[in-house]
Amino acid sequence: MALSTAITLQQFEPGGTTQAALLVGTVGMFLGMLYFISAGRGETDPRKQEYYIITAFIPAIAFVSYLSMALGFGATTVEFAWLGQPTQEHTILWARYADWLFTTPLLLLDLALLAGANRQTIGTLVGLDVAMIVTGLMAALTNRGALGLSTSGVRIIWWGISCGFFLALLYFLLGTLSRNAARQPGEVGRLFSTLRNLTAVLWTAYPVVWIIGTEGLGLITLGPETAAYAVLDLLAKVGFGFLLVRSRSVIDQAAAGAGAVTADD
Amino acid sequence: MALSTAITLQQFEPGGTTQAALLVGTVGMFLGMLYFISAGRGETDPRKQEYYIITAFIPAIAFVSYLSMALGFGATTVEFAWLGQPTQEHTILWARYADWLFTTPLLLLDLALLAGANRQTIGTLVGLDVAMIVTGLMAALTNRGALGLSTSGVRIIWWGISCGFFLALLYFLLGTLSRNAARQPGEVGRLFSTLRNLTAVLWTAYPVVWIIGTEGLGLITLGPETAAYAVLDLLAKVGFGFLLVRSRSVIDQAAAGAGAVTADD
Amino acid sequence: MALSTAITLQQFEPGGTTQAALLVGTVGMFLGMLYFISAGRGETDPRKQEYYIITAFIPAIAFVSYLSMALGFGATTVEFAWLGQPTQEHTILWARYADWLFTTPLLLLDLALLAGANRQTIGTLVGLDVAMIVTGLMAALTNRGALGLSTSGVRIIWWGISCGFFLALLYFLLGTLSRNAARQPGEVGRLFSTLRNLTAVLWTAYPVVWIIGTEGLGLITLGPETAAYAVLDLLAKVGFGFLLVRSRSVIDQAAAGAGAVTADD
Repeated sequence: MALSTAITLQQFEPGGTTQAALLVGTVGMFLGMLYFISAGRGETDPRKQEYYIITAFIPAIAFVSYLSMALGFGATTVEFAWLGQPTQEHTILWARYADWLFTTPLLLLDLALLAGANRQTIGTLVGLDVAMIVTGLMAALTNRGALGLSTSGVRIIWWGISCGFFLALLYFLLGTLSRNAARQPGEVGRLFSTLRNLTAVLWTAYPVVWIIGTEGLGLITLGPETAAYAVLDLLAKVGFGFLLVRSRSVIDQAAAGAGAVTADD
Repeated sequence: MALSTAITLQQFEPGGTTQAALLVGTVGMFLGMLYFISAGRGETDPRKQEYYIITAFIPAIAFVSYLSMALGFGATTVEFAWLGQPTQEHTILWARYADWLFTTPLLLLDLALLAGANRQTIGTLVGLDVAMIVTGLMAALTNRGALGLSTSGVRIIWWGISCGFFLALLYFLLGTLSRNAARQPGEVGRLFSTLRNLTAVLWTAYPVVWIIGTEGLGLITLGPETAAYAVLDLLAKVGFGFLLVRSRSVIDQAAAGAGAVTADD
Repeated sequence: MALSTAITLQQFEPGGTTQAALLVGTVGMFLGMLYFISAGRGETDPRKQEYYIITAFIPAIAFVSYLSMALGFGATTVEFAWLGQPTQEHTILWARYADWLFTTPLLLLDLALLAGANRQTIGTLVGLDVAMIVTGLMAALTNRGALGLSTSGVRIIWWGISCGFFLALLYFLLGTLSRNAARQPGEVGRLFSTLRNLTAVLWTAYPVVWIIGTEGLGLITLGPETAAYAVLDLLAKVGFGFLLVRSRSVIDQAAAGAGAVTADD
């Protein structure tokens, strides 16, 4: 009956795809974290350090989240029926949302630093992002219908609202932020474009996996769904970070530019 | 038994005052959000954009909160007895507090920007505000007595502590912040005074509704209480924002002043 | 079954050591808060005010947390077995972690301001600190085994990860932050060293109490454990703050230095 009982009921079949995918995610994030820490060692310019700090914290947070899911802490069960199906208990890995709540703003912060964005733009991006994740969590946890809608109907409404915030986010990412980045030196602008495109494409895949997965319409099962998220998470966090930190000369230029931008901001 | 079960049990009587008030709040906040977004479109000066961004996020957050209450996600039940009454289950709309936790600091930020306040003053205001909301949530969720006090007694103690933080907040709002605003150009100072007075009066009504409502002494029922909060929320968020964003020339002056303040800060 | 039921089940034996320690903590934090507020009254320089504001908010937050534990709100029960013991219900005072989540970053902020640290260093310290507290909370709430480990084994893994983040934090506290502080005027550097040493020693005691206490191996009971935490909390928050705010001339120098640092940052 205690708080912790309520949030740690679920266990996975040992050796199944779900648990394997969670362990791959845990190890991958841990190694990514170590790599970004080692890449940043010896850097003494605060403006350059900032990229390594942010980029290392992203897989560090995801590591804790993945481990919590692998250990069952980050899982719960929610009772609902897929459209036209009987009601049953579904495993919901809520720790994903706790992870995304902090890692997605940090990824946007990396992009915003490269683009030389001001705090108004950063605030807007982070606000839309947090709204997207929180309403996504509501979609995931909803276990009852209302206003004449079935439980699944209400879940899909929250998913739709979350997608709405995501579209607004994409609008600023592809609009204001890209215009900011166009004023940066050529190499910085190119790295920004690469990372922005990677982010736009990968992030678009998340709501698709959600709606076809066990939280949405139940067209795929928990194993493949968890594997798909693990691949997306590793690409969007460790892959993103790898492309960023290997570009030392671009970070040098971006950091030099940031100095100038801040001074007249 | 899962987390989501615990927080989404409650359903409202369809067509009742409670649900009607929640739907009015949902629609009102959505329209307010659209209006502030459209008012801010085309603005390119970051210092002016800031007002529109903050002011649009306030009803956006409240929209999500109201919708969650209307859909039952943001409601729970707590067992306690009003003073001298038998114990019974009470519907607690906890999503209000999640809304207020973010929207009240943003409203204070609008006021602080108008007043040209420094980060020390903003930090103090936001800290007191968060303490006020969190202890208010404790009041709302308390379901047992302690130290010889009844459950209702403990609830009223938390309400009293929350009021204490509110009084400290008012002290800074009417003191430091108003002194800051007095140094701003005349029109900015007048708009600040109007919005500050609106905020001080409306915010004072909240703990009054709380203590006479179902969470406190139970002198009024959930329907009128929900309607009262909806009116207060719409005035304190959409009404506040309307008075702010229609004053374009004042925002111009405030933004120009902010540049000067920041430069020598 | 409601959210609040789940988190407020536990009651303490009236008059026992646990409740006495919680009441001492509550009163001590309240008095500390009043003292730091009175010490800061009349200060008009924002850079000096900042120390008093931060230092007063620390015991204010701890006061709310201690009161919530004394009133039973901040307590829950978790079922697990100490190594080699039968499974039983244990009282977990989760409100400690809510307290620490906000007070430990504020203590680090006081140290960082004295050291004249940049936002990259502050961000790193706060990030590691939050990771330390959150994984500590996971240790406290875990109620089941996984991957072939017993519940107690999983709890100790989370404790170990939390200790890992603490060691990384100590590395930055004793490394980067101390190098920053060495560039500050002599008296400021000495006050920083005193407070840093106090913090390093006291904070190290927390995981020790945890692992020998009821949340870890169960070598001591809840009464002495709660008393030990109360002493540590009062020293690390009120004692720390007392040493800081009584050094008015050092705060004057640190504030003057901060102006110079920010200007060329």
